[in-house]
Amino acid sequence: MPTRAAPRAPTLFLRLEFGGEDRIGPGKIALLEAVASERSISAAARAMGMSYRRAWLLIDTMNRMFREPVVSARPGRAADGPSAQVTTFGERLVRLYREAERRAGRSCAPLVDELVTALRSGYRPPESKSRTR
Amino acid sequence: MPTRAAPRAPTLFLRLEFGGEDRIGPGKIALLEAVASERSISAAARAMGMSYRRAWLLIDTMNRMFREPVVSARPGRAADGPSAQVTTFGERLVRLYREAERRAGRSCAPLVDELVTALRSGYRPPESKSRTR
Repeated sequence: MPTRAAPRAPTLFLRLEFGGEDRIGPGKIALLEAVASERSISAAARAMGMSYRRAWLLIDTMNRMFREPVVSARPGRAADGPSAQVTTFGERLVRLYREAERRAGRSCAPLVDELVTALRSGYRPPESKSRTR
Repeated sequence: MPTRAAPRAPTLFLRLEFGGEDRIGPGKIALLEAVASERSISAAARAMGMSYRRAWLLIDTMNRMFREPVVSARPGRAADGPSAQVTTFGERLVRLYREAERRAGRSCAPLVDELVTALRSGYRPPESKSRTR
């Protein structure tokens, strides 16, 4: 019996763990996307609803994780914090991750469908049966 | 230049969000697997290094999320807490999730490889280039 309100599309997220503390997931990727559009770590942090410190730590982690940095900061370029730019490698990281998400979504669609039919709400997304983002 | 110690295989994790608070990820699935092998929520919680309360809450969330429960508890059957059993549906949920993980791992392997080559450690897993669990 349905007990929940509005139907929403199921979403599939990926987390890649490379060993130790090296991991990439939806939070870090969304932060990079926010930095790319805001061109500022503090503005990206605000847009994501996280503290500047947390955003900076996540970016610093990524900058140390890979051979090349994902974000280059330019102190003093913006009023409310250093302006920042996603590097070419950072853009590639985002592209690879989002493409991996799409491929995983396609390859898992039948299984996700099967789980959706088992949900108590009995929910089916309106357009496709296994939309992923 | 390599700066990290022992090479480890990259691992891909899936999280499925069905809308609202309904989500399934590696933590809940590993807990179900622990309950299946321990046949006790408290023993499974210990094996997972989490509190009994947290394990119980995660299981209760899953039992409410789907039309059928994933774990049935039998109070008083064990010395140190209720003994518990993963239901047929719970076993199916674990199978579906692990199969989705394998499919996602296969479909994302080339992308994961590309990211692994970009890691600062320059690490390559010994046997296969994109082992996932």
